[in-house]
Amino acid sequence: MPDDMHAPAPDYPVTPRNRVKRTPERGVYDRETVHAILDAGMLCHVAWVLDGQPFCTPTFHWREGDTLYWHGSSASRMLRSLRAGLPACVTVSHLDGLVLARCGFNHSANYRSVMCFGTARIVEDPEEKARALTAVIDRFFPERAATLRANTAQEVKATTVIGMHIDEASAKIRAKGVGDGPEEFGQRVWAGVLPVRTVIGAAEPCPNTQPALPRPASLDVYAEGGTLDAALRATQALYEAAG
Amino acid sequence: MPDDMHAPAPDYPVTPRNRVKRTPERGVYDRETVHAILDAGMLCHVAWVLDGQPFCTPTFHWREGDTLYWHGSSASRMLRSLRAGLPACVTVSHLDGLVLARCGFNHSANYRSVMCFGTARIVEDPEEKARALTAVIDRFFPERAATLRANTAQEVKATTVIGMHIDEASAKIRAKGVGDGPEEFGQRVWAGVLPVRTVIGAAEPCPNTQPALPRPASLDVYAEGGTLDAALRATQALYEAAG
Repeated sequence: MPDDMHAPAPDYPVTPRNRVKRTPERGVYDRETVHAILDAGMLCHVAWVLDGQPFCTPTFHWREGDTLYWHGSSASRMLRSLRAGLPACVTVSHLDGLVLARCGFNHSANYRSVMCFGTARIVEDPEEKARALTAVIDRFFPERAATLRANTAQEVKATTVIGMHIDEASAKIRAKGVGDGPEEFGQRVWAGVLPVRTVIGAAEPCPNTQPALPRPASLDVYAEGGTLDAALRATQALYEAAG
Repeated sequence: MPDDMHAPAPDYPVTPRNRVKRTPERGVYDRETVHAILDAGMLCHVAWVLDGQPFCTPTFHWREGDTLYWHGSSASRMLRSLRAGLPACVTVSHLDGLVLARCGFNHSANYRSVMCFGTARIVEDPEEKARALTAVIDRFFPERAATLRANTAQEVKATTVIGMHIDEASAKIRAKGVGDGPEEFGQRVWAGVLPVRTVIGAAEPCPNTQPALPRPASLDVYAEGGTLDAALRATQALYEAAG
Protein backbone atom coordinates (compact mmCIF):
# COMPACT_ATOMS: atom_id res chain seq x y z
CA MET A 1 0.00 0.00 0.00
CA PRO A 2 1.25 3.53 -0.64
CA ASP A 3 2.31 5.20 2.55
CA ASP A 4 0.29 8.34 2.14
CA MET A 5 -3.31 7.28 2.53
CA HIS A 6 -3.65 9.71 5.38
CA ALA A 7 -4.60 13.11 3.94
CA PRO A 8 -1.36 14.77 2.85
CA ALA A 9 -0.69 18.46 3.21
CA PRO A 10 -1.78 20.30 0.08
CA ASP A 11 1.68 21.61 -0.69
CA TYR A 12 5.04 19.86 -0.93
CA PRO A 13 7.58 21.40 1.42
CA VAL A 14 9.81 24.01 -0.20
CA THR A 15 13.49 23.57 0.56
CA PRO A 16 16.75 24.72 -1.01
CA ARG A 17 16.62 21.49 -3.03
CA ASN A 18 13.30 21.96 -4.80
CA ARG A 19 12.77 25.72 -4.69
CA VAL A 20 12.49 27.10 -8.24
CA LYS A 21 15.26 29.68 -8.48
CA ARG A 22 15.28 30.59 -12.15
CA THR A 23 12.03 32.40 -13.05
CA PRO A 24 10.60 31.70 -9.55
CA GLU A 25 7.21 33.10 -10.65
CA ARG A 26 6.84 29.86 -12.66
CA GLY A 27 7.28 27.64 -9.59
CA VAL A 28 4.31 25.74 -8.14
CA TYR A 29 4.36 23.38 -5.17
CA ASP A 30 0.79 22.22 -4.62
CA ARG A 31 0.09 18.50 -4.90
CA GLU A 32 -2.79 18.90 -7.33
CA THR A 33 -0.66 20.69 -9.91
CA VAL A 34 2.34 18.41 -9.38
CA HIS A 35 0.26 15.26 -9.68
CA ALA A 36 -1.60 16.48 -12.78
CA ILE A 37 1.71 17.01 -14.59
CA LEU A 38 3.07 13.62 -13.47
CA ASP A 39 -0.13 11.83 -14.46
CA ALA A 40 -0.30 13.45 -17.90
CA GLY A 41 2.88 11.65 -18.95
CA MET A 42 4.26 8.14 -18.93
CA LEU A 43 7.82 9.01 -19.89
CA CYS A 44 10.01 10.24 -17.06
CA HIS A 45 13.73 10.79 -16.66
CA VAL A 46 15.52 9.59 -13.53
CA ALA A 47 18.76 11.25 -12.43
CA TRP A 48 20.92 9.12 -10.19
CA VAL A 49 24.62 8.91 -9.34
CA LEU A 50 27.09 6.07 -9.44
CA ASP A 51 30.63 6.77 -8.22
CA GLY A 52 30.14 10.50 -8.78
CA GLN A 53 28.94 10.01 -12.37
CA PRO A 54 25.40 11.24 -13.05
CA PHE A 55 23.10 9.16 -15.23
CA CYS A 56 19.86 10.36 -16.78
CA THR A 57 17.75 7.28 -17.48
CA PRO A 58 14.49 7.50 -19.41
CA THR A 59 11.80 5.12 -18.23
CA PHE A 60 8.05 4.86 -17.70
CA HIS A 61 6.43 5.82 -14.43
CA TRP A 62 3.13 5.66 -12.65
CA ARG A 63 1.94 7.18 -9.40
CA GLU A 64 0.02 6.03 -6.34
CA GLY A 65 -0.60 8.90 -3.95
CA ASP A 66 2.79 10.38 -3.15
CA THR A 67 4.75 7.38 -4.46
CA LEU A 68 6.22 7.13 -7.95
CA TYR A 69 6.89 3.72 -9.41
CA TRP A 70 8.89 2.57 -12.39
CA HIS A 71 10.32 -0.78 -13.32
CA GLY A 72 12.95 -2.60 -15.28
CA SER A 73 15.00 -5.72 -15.58
CA SER A 74 16.93 -6.87 -12.54
CA ALA A 75 20.00 -6.80 -14.75
CA SER A 76 20.07 -3.08 -15.20
CA ARG A 77 22.95 -1.14 -13.79
CA MET A 78 20.71 1.47 -12.25
CA LEU A 79 18.67 -1.04 -10.34
CA ARG A 80 21.66 -2.86 -8.96
CA SER A 81 23.02 0.36 -7.55
CA LEU A 82 19.58 1.29 -6.20
CA ARG A 83 19.28 -1.81 -4.03
CA ALA A 84 20.43 0.03 -0.93
CA GLY A 85 18.13 2.98 -1.63
CA LEU A 86 19.57 5.76 -3.68
CA PRO A 87 18.87 9.50 -3.85
CA ALA A 88 17.09 10.19 -7.11
CA CYS A 89 15.42 13.01 -8.96
CA VAL A 90 12.56 12.07 -11.26
CA THR A 91 11.46 14.64 -13.82
CA VAL A 92 8.42 14.63 -16.09
CA SER A 93 8.19 17.33 -18.77
CA HIS A 94 5.67 18.27 -21.40
CA LEU A 95 6.51 20.59 -24.28
CA ASP A 96 3.40 22.61 -25.13
CA GLY A 97 4.59 25.21 -27.57
CA LEU A 98 7.42 27.13 -29.22
CA VAL A 99 7.37 30.85 -28.49
CA LEU A 100 8.81 33.06 -31.23
CA ALA A 101 9.52 36.61 -30.08
CA ARG A 102 10.90 39.71 -31.80
CA CYS A 103 14.25 39.45 -30.04
CA GLY A 104 16.37 36.45 -29.21
CA PHE A 105 16.11 36.95 -25.47
CA ASN A 106 12.31 36.59 -25.43
CA HIS A 107 12.23 33.37 -27.41
CA SER A 108 10.91 30.67 -25.13
CA ALA A 109 8.74 27.61 -24.90
CA ASN A 110 5.51 26.74 -23.20
CA TYR A 111 5.92 23.72 -21.00
CA ARG A 112 4.87 21.93 -17.82
CA SER A 113 7.50 20.09 -15.82
CA VAL A 114 7.86 18.52 -12.41
CA MET A 115 11.00 17.56 -10.51
CA CYS A 116 10.51 15.04 -7.70
CA PHE A 117 13.10 14.29 -5.04
CA GLY A 118 13.30 11.22 -2.89
CA THR A 119 15.08 7.96 -2.24
CA ALA A 120 14.47 5.24 -4.78
CA ARG A 121 14.18 1.73 -3.38
CA ILE A 122 13.49 -1.70 -4.78
CA VAL A 123 10.01 -2.95 -3.94
CA GLU A 124 10.81 -6.21 -2.15
CA ASP A 125 7.52 -6.86 -0.37
CA PRO A 126 5.71 -9.51 -2.46
CA GLU A 127 2.29 -7.94 -1.87
CA GLU A 128 3.40 -4.45 -2.86
CA LYS A 129 5.19 -5.90 -5.88
CA ALA A 130 2.14 -7.88 -7.01
CA ARG A 131 0.01 -4.79 -6.62
CA ALA A 132 2.53 -2.76 -8.64
CA LEU A 133 2.63 -5.32 -11.47
CA THR A 134 -1.14 -5.02 -11.74
CA ALA A 135 -1.03 -1.24 -11.45
CA VAL A 136 1.50 -0.84 -14.24
CA ILE A 137 -1.13 -2.34 -16.58
CA ASP A 138 -4.42 -1.12 -15.11
CA ARG A 139 -3.26 2.40 -14.42
CA PHE A 140 -2.76 2.87 -18.18
CA PHE A 141 -5.33 0.41 -19.57
CA PRO A 142 -8.39 0.16 -17.32
CA GLU A 143 -9.21 -3.36 -16.10
CA ARG A 144 -6.81 -4.94 -18.58
CA ALA A 145 -4.60 -6.87 -16.14
CA ALA A 146 -7.34 -9.42 -15.37
CA THR A 147 -7.69 -10.23 -19.10
CA LEU A 148 -4.03 -11.16 -19.60
CA ARG A 149 -2.12 -14.39 -19.27
CA ALA A 150 -1.03 -14.43 -15.63
CA ASN A 151 2.57 -13.49 -14.82
CA THR A 152 4.84 -16.48 -14.31
CA ALA A 153 7.06 -16.72 -11.26
CA GLN A 154 10.05 -16.30 -13.55
CA GLU A 155 8.60 -13.10 -15.04
CA VAL A 156 7.93 -11.66 -11.60
CA LYS A 157 11.47 -12.52 -10.56
CA ALA A 158 12.93 -10.93 -13.70
CA THR A 159 11.04 -7.69 -13.14
CA THR A 160 12.30 -5.20 -10.62
CA VAL A 161 9.88 -2.57 -9.42
CA ILE A 162 11.30 0.68 -8.07
CA GLY A 163 9.35 2.92 -5.75
CA MET A 164 10.15 6.43 -4.60
CA HIS A 165 8.22 8.41 -2.06
CA ILE A 166 8.08 12.01 -3.25
CA ASP A 167 9.69 13.87 -0.37
CA GLU A 168 9.82 17.16 -2.22
CA ALA A 169 8.58 18.29 -5.59
CA SER A 170 8.23 21.41 -7.63
CA ALA A 171 6.37 22.13 -10.81
CA LYS A 172 7.36 24.74 -13.31
CA ILE A 173 4.92 26.01 -15.89
CA ARG A 174 5.00 28.49 -18.72
CA ALA A 175 1.69 28.86 -20.50
CA LYS A 176 1.35 32.22 -22.20
CA GLY A 177 2.07 34.20 -25.31
CA VAL A 178 5.08 36.13 -26.48
CA GLY A 179 6.89 38.01 -23.72
CA ASP A 180 7.78 41.05 -25.83
CA GLY A 181 7.07 44.56 -24.59
CA PRO A 182 6.31 47.83 -26.40
CA GLU A 183 10.01 48.29 -27.12
CA GLU A 184 9.87 45.20 -29.37
CA PHE A 185 6.46 45.65 -31.00
CA GLY A 186 7.91 47.86 -33.73
CA GLN A 187 10.24 45.14 -34.97
CA ARG A 188 8.87 43.94 -38.32
CA VAL A 189 9.02 40.20 -37.73
CA TRP A 190 6.27 37.64 -37.18
CA ALA A 191 5.89 36.65 -33.54
CA GLY A 192 3.63 34.09 -31.96
CA VAL A 193 3.29 30.63 -30.51
CA LEU A 194 3.53 27.34 -32.38
CA PRO A 195 1.58 24.94 -30.13
CA VAL A 196 2.59 21.28 -30.04
CA ARG A 197 0.81 18.30 -28.55
CA THR A 198 1.34 14.55 -28.40
CA VAL A 199 -1.50 12.75 -30.14
CA ILE A 200 -2.55 9.13 -30.50
CA GLY A 201 -2.52 7.57 -33.95
CA ALA A 202 -4.57 4.77 -35.46
CA ALA A 203 -4.27 1.56 -33.45
CA GLU A 204 -2.16 -1.13 -35.14
CA PRO A 205 -3.56 -4.54 -34.14
CA CYS A 206 -1.06 -7.34 -33.72
CA PRO A 207 -1.24 -9.48 -36.88
CA ASN A 208 -1.54 -12.53 -34.63
CA THR A 209 -4.68 -11.24 -32.94
CA GLN A 210 -7.46 -13.80 -33.05
CA PRO A 211 -10.08 -13.04 -35.70
CA ALA A 212 -13.15 -11.14 -34.56
CA LEU A 213 -11.41 -9.89 -31.45
CA PRO A 214 -12.26 -6.19 -31.34
CA ARG A 215 -10.44 -3.53 -29.41
CA PRO A 216 -12.18 -3.36 -26.04
CA ALA A 217 -14.24 -0.30 -25.17
CA SER A 218 -11.92 0.31 -22.24
CA LEU A 219 -9.34 1.50 -24.77
CA ASP A 220 -11.66 4.11 -26.29
CA VAL A 221 -9.89 6.71 -24.19
CA TYR A 222 -6.94 6.17 -26.56
CA ALA A 223 -9.01 6.94 -29.67
CA GLU A 224 -7.12 8.16 -32.72
CA GLY A 225 -6.57 11.92 -32.71
CA GLY A 226 -6.91 12.37 -28.96
CA THR A 227 -4.03 13.67 -26.92
CA LEU A 228 -1.92 11.28 -24.88
CA ASP A 229 -2.05 13.85 -22.09
CA ALA A 230 -5.85 13.62 -21.80
CA ALA A 231 -5.86 9.82 -22.11
CA LEU A 232 -3.31 9.43 -19.33
CA ARG A 233 -5.10 11.83 -17.00
CA ALA A 234 -8.40 10.06 -17.66
CA THR A 235 -6.98 6.58 -17.04
CA GLN A 236 -5.30 7.75 -13.83
CA ALA A 237 -8.67 9.08 -12.61
CA LEU A 238 -10.33 5.75 -13.51
CA TYR A 239 -7.57 3.85 -11.72
CA GLU A 240 -7.96 5.96 -8.58
CA ALA A 241 -11.75 5.62 -8.68
CA ALA A 242 -11.42 1.83 -8.92
CA GLY A 243 -9.45 1.96 -5.67
CA MET B 1 33.86 26.67 -33.41
CA PRO B 2 32.87 23.16 -32.52
CA ASP B 3 35.93 21.07 -31.84
CA ASP B 4 35.05 18.22 -34.17
CA MET B 5 35.30 19.68 -37.65
CA HIS B 6 37.85 16.99 -38.48
CA ALA B 7 35.95 13.88 -39.58
CA PRO B 8 34.89 12.02 -36.46
CA ALA B 9 34.90 8.26 -36.16
CA PRO B 10 31.53 6.88 -37.20
CA ASP B 11 30.85 5.29 -33.82
CA TYR B 12 31.04 6.68 -30.32
CA PRO B 13 33.38 4.66 -28.10
CA VAL B 14 31.65 2.00 -26.03
CA THR B 15 32.69 1.97 -22.38
CA PRO B 16 31.23 0.63 -19.15
CA ARG B 17 29.54 4.03 -18.80
CA ASN B 18 27.52 4.11 -22.00
CA ARG B 19 27.19 0.43 -22.92
CA VAL B 20 23.52 -0.55 -23.06
CA LYS B 21 23.15 -3.36 -20.55
CA ARG B 22 19.42 -3.86 -20.35
CA THR B 23 18.12 -5.24 -23.69
CA PRO B 24 21.56 -4.74 -25.30
CA GLU B 25 20.09 -5.64 -28.71
CA ARG B 26 18.43 -2.22 -28.62
CA GLY B 27 21.76 -0.39 -28.19
CA VAL B 28 23.20 1.65 -31.06
CA TYR B 29 26.41 3.68 -31.01
CA ASP B 30 26.83 5.17 -34.47
CA ARG B 31 26.91 8.95 -34.77
CA GLU B 32 24.27 9.10 -37.49
CA THR B 33 21.65 7.36 -35.35
CA VAL B 34 22.61 9.24 -32.18
CA HIS B 35 22.52 12.62 -33.90
CA ALA B 36 19.20 11.92 -35.63
CA ILE B 37 17.56 11.22 -32.26
CA LEU B 38 19.12 14.32 -30.66
CA ASP B 39 18.12 16.53 -33.59
CA ALA B 40 14.51 15.28 -33.65
CA GLY B 41 13.90 16.82 -30.22
CA MET B 42 14.38 20.16 -28.54
CA LEU B 43 13.56 19.00 -25.00
CA CYS B 44 16.38 17.26 -23.17
CA HIS B 45 16.98 16.27 -19.56
CA VAL B 46 20.32 16.97 -17.91
CA ALA B 47 21.46 14.88 -14.94
CA TRP B 48 24.06 16.52 -12.75
CA VAL B 49 25.18 16.25 -9.14
CA LEU B 50 25.54 18.83 -6.40
CA ASP B 51 26.90 17.64 -3.05
CA GLY B 52 25.92 14.06 -3.85
CA GLN B 53 22.33 15.01 -4.73
CA PRO B 54 21.30 14.23 -8.31
CA PHE B 55 19.19 16.75 -10.22
CA CYS B 56 17.32 16.07 -13.43
CA THR B 57 16.80 19.40 -15.16
CA PRO B 58 14.65 19.72 -18.26
CA THR B 59 15.89 22.25 -20.79
CA PHE B 60 16.18 22.87 -24.52
CA HIS B 61 19.21 21.76 -26.48
CA TRP B 62 20.78 22.12 -29.87
CA ARG B 63 23.76 20.42 -31.46
CA GLU B 64 26.79 21.44 -33.48
CA GLY B 65 28.83 18.43 -34.56
CA ASP B 66 29.68 16.54 -31.40
CA THR B 67 28.82 19.41 -29.07
CA LEU B 68 25.48 19.87 -27.33
CA TYR B 69 24.44 23.31 -26.21
CA TRP B 70 21.76 24.55 -23.85
CA HIS B 71 21.30 27.78 -22.02
CA GLY B 72 19.74 29.50 -19.07
CA SER B 73 19.95 32.39 -16.72
CA SER B 74 23.23 33.06 -14.94
CA ALA B 75 21.24 32.90 -11.72
CA SER B 76 20.40 29.23 -11.95
CA ARG B 77 21.78 26.86 -9.39
CA MET B 78 22.85 24.37 -12.02
CA LEU B 79 24.87 26.87 -13.94
CA ARG B 80 26.64 28.21 -10.89
CA SER B 81 27.77 24.74 -9.99
CA LEU B 82 28.78 24.06 -13.59
CA ARG B 83 31.24 26.92 -13.80
CA ALA B 84 34.18 24.66 -13.09
CA GLY B 85 33.01 22.05 -15.59
CA LEU B 86 30.77 19.34 -14.27
CA PRO B 87 30.16 15.73 -15.34
CA ALA B 88 26.74 15.56 -16.91
CA CYS B 89 24.49 13.13 -18.71
CA VAL B 90 22.12 14.60 -21.27
CA THR B 91 19.24 12.43 -22.43
CA VAL B 92 16.78 12.98 -25.26
CA SER B 93 13.81 10.60 -25.54
CA HIS B 94 10.94 10.21 -27.94
CA LEU B 95 7.89 8.12 -27.10
CA ASP B 96 6.62 6.54 -30.33
CA GLY B 97 3.98 4.09 -29.21
CA LEU B 98 2.34 2.05 -26.47
CA VAL B 99 2.67 -1.70 -26.94
CA LEU B 100 -0.19 -3.78 -25.52
CA ALA B 101 0.62 -7.47 -25.26
CA ARG B 102 -1.31 -10.52 -24.07
CA CYS B 103 0.67 -10.80 -20.84
CA GLY B 104 1.96 -8.12 -18.52
CA PHE B 105 5.60 -8.95 -19.11
CA ASN B 106 5.42 -8.20 -22.85
CA HIS B 107 3.80 -4.80 -22.46
CA SER B 108 6.26 -2.24 -23.68
CA ALA B 109 6.67 1.01 -25.53
CA ASN B 110 8.23 2.03 -28.78
CA TYR B 111 10.77 4.78 -28.25
CA ARG B 112 14.03 6.32 -29.36
CA SER B 113 16.40 7.66 -26.74
CA VAL B 114 19.98 8.84 -26.48
CA MET B 115 22.16 9.26 -23.42
CA CYS B 116 25.20 11.53 -23.88
CA PHE B 117 28.08 11.72 -21.43
CA GLY B 118 30.57 14.54 -21.10
CA THR B 119 31.67 17.51 -19.06
CA ALA B 120 29.40 20.53 -19.19
CA ARG B 121 31.15 23.89 -19.25
CA ILE B 122 30.07 27.49 -19.48
CA VAL B 123 30.81 29.01 -22.87
CA GLU B 124 32.98 31.97 -21.91
CA ASP B 125 34.61 32.78 -25.25
CA PRO B 126 32.70 35.82 -26.61
CA GLU B 127 32.88 34.56 -30.19
CA GLU B 128 31.59 31.08 -29.36
CA LYS B 129 28.88 32.64 -27.21
CA ALA B 130 27.76 35.03 -29.95
CA ARG B 131 27.67 32.16 -32.39
CA ALA B 132 25.62 30.09 -29.95
CA LEU B 133 23.09 32.89 -29.37
CA THR B 134 22.55 33.04 -33.12
CA ALA B 135 22.43 29.25 -33.42
CA VAL B 136 19.79 28.87 -30.73
CA ILE B 137 17.45 30.86 -33.00
CA ASP B 138 18.56 29.87 -36.50
CA ARG B 139 18.94 26.19 -35.77
CA PHE B 140 15.20 26.03 -35.03
CA PHE B 141 13.91 28.88 -37.21
CA PRO B 142 15.97 29.22 -40.39
CA GLU B 143 17.47 32.67 -40.96
CA ARG B 144 15.36 34.22 -38.21
CA ALA B 145 18.14 35.67 -36.03
CA ALA B 146 18.99 38.41 -38.55
CA THR B 147 15.37 39.61 -38.53
CA LEU B 148 15.22 40.19 -34.76
CA ARG B 149 16.02 43.16 -32.60
CA ALA B 150 19.72 42.72 -31.80
CA ASN B 151 20.65 41.33 -28.38
CA THR B 152 21.63 44.01 -25.88
CA ALA B 153 24.86 43.72 -23.89
CA GLN B 154 22.74 43.21 -20.78
CA GLU B 155 20.83 40.33 -22.41
CA VAL B 156 24.04 38.63 -23.50
CA LYS B 157 25.41 39.01 -19.98
CA ALA B 158 22.22 37.60 -18.43
CA THR B 159 22.29 34.53 -20.68
CA THR B 160 24.60 31.67 -19.86
CA VAL B 161 25.34 29.19 -22.62
CA ILE B 162 26.41 25.71 -21.63
CA GLY B 163 28.35 23.46 -23.98
CA MET B 164 29.14 19.79 -23.61
CA HIS B 165 31.34 17.78 -25.91
CA ILE B 166 29.76 14.35 -26.34
CA ASP B 167 32.54 12.05 -25.15
CA GLU B 168 30.36 8.97 -25.19
CA ALA B 169 26.81 8.31 -26.28
CA SER B 170 24.43 5.46 -26.78
CA ALA B 171 21.07 5.26 -28.46
CA LYS B 172 18.37 2.83 -27.55
CA ILE B 173 15.52 2.10 -29.89
CA ARG B 174 12.45 -0.08 -29.83
CA ALA B 175 10.41 0.10 -33.03
CA LYS B 176 8.36 -3.01 -33.54
CA GLY B 177 5.10 -4.75 -32.77
CA VAL B 178 3.94 -6.88 -29.89
CA GLY B 179 6.61 -9.20 -28.50
CA ASP B 180 4.26 -12.10 -27.76
CA GLY B 181 5.07 -15.63 -28.92
CA PRO B 182 2.88 -18.59 -29.86
CA GLU B 183 2.38 -19.36 -26.16
CA GLU B 184 0.44 -16.08 -25.82
CA PHE B 185 -1.44 -16.00 -29.12
CA GLY B 186 -4.30 -18.07 -27.72
CA GLN B 187 -5.10 -15.49 -25.03
CA ARG B 188 -8.37 -13.84 -26.01
CA VAL B 189 -7.38 -10.21 -25.52
CA TRP B 190 -6.76 -7.44 -28.02
CA ALA B 191 -3.07 -6.78 -28.59
CA GLY B 192 -1.39 -4.16 -30.70
CA VAL B 193 0.41 -0.85 -30.82
CA LEU B 194 -1.08 2.57 -30.10
CA PRO B 195 1.28 4.91 -31.96
CA VAL B 196 1.84 8.42 -30.62
CA ARG B 197 3.50 11.43 -32.20
CA THR B 198 4.10 15.05 -31.32
CA VAL B 199 2.37 17.32 -33.82
CA ILE B 200 2.34 21.04 -34.47
CA GLY B 201 -0.92 22.94 -34.01
CA ALA B 202 -2.27 26.08 -35.64
CA ALA B 203 0.10 29.01 -35.19
CA GLU B 204 -1.14 31.61 -32.71
CA PRO B 205 0.13 35.03 -33.84
CA CYS B 206 1.00 37.49 -31.11
CA PRO B 207 -1.92 39.94 -30.85
CA ASN B 208 0.60 42.78 -31.00
CA THR B 209 1.94 41.65 -34.37
CA GLN B 210 1.95 44.49 -36.86
CA PRO B 211 -0.93 44.29 -39.33
CA ALA B 212 -0.23 42.63 -42.66
CA LEU B 213 2.85 40.88 -41.32
CA PRO B 214 2.50 37.31 -42.56
CA ARG B 215 4.22 34.30 -41.13
CA PRO B 216 7.45 33.99 -43.13
CA ALA B 217 7.85 31.09 -45.54
CA SER B 218 10.85 29.94 -43.51
CA LEU B 219 8.38 28.75 -40.88
CA ASP B 220 6.44 26.56 -43.34
CA VAL B 221 8.36 23.59 -41.99
CA TYR B 222 6.25 24.04 -38.83
CA ALA B 223 2.95 23.83 -40.72
CA GLU B 224 -0.09 22.71 -38.74
CA GLY B 225 -0.43 18.93 -38.55
CA GLY B 226 3.21 18.15 -39.24
CA THR B 227 5.31 16.36 -36.66
CA LEU B 228 7.72 18.29 -34.48
CA ASP B 229 10.20 15.48 -35.09
CA ALA B 230 10.25 16.08 -38.86
CA ALA B 231 10.35 19.87 -38.46
CA LEU B 232 13.32 19.71 -36.12
CA ARG B 233 15.25 17.30 -38.32
CA ALA B 234 14.55 19.48 -41.36
CA THR B 235 15.64 22.69 -39.65
CA GLN B 236 18.81 21.03 -38.35
CA ALA B 237 19.65 19.97 -41.92
CA LEU B 238 19.01 23.52 -43.17
CA TYR B 239 21.18 24.93 -40.38
CA GLU B 240 24.04 22.58 -41.21
CA ALA B 241 23.71 23.33 -44.93
CA ALA B 242 23.89 27.08 -44.22
CA GLY B 243 27.27 26.43 -42.55
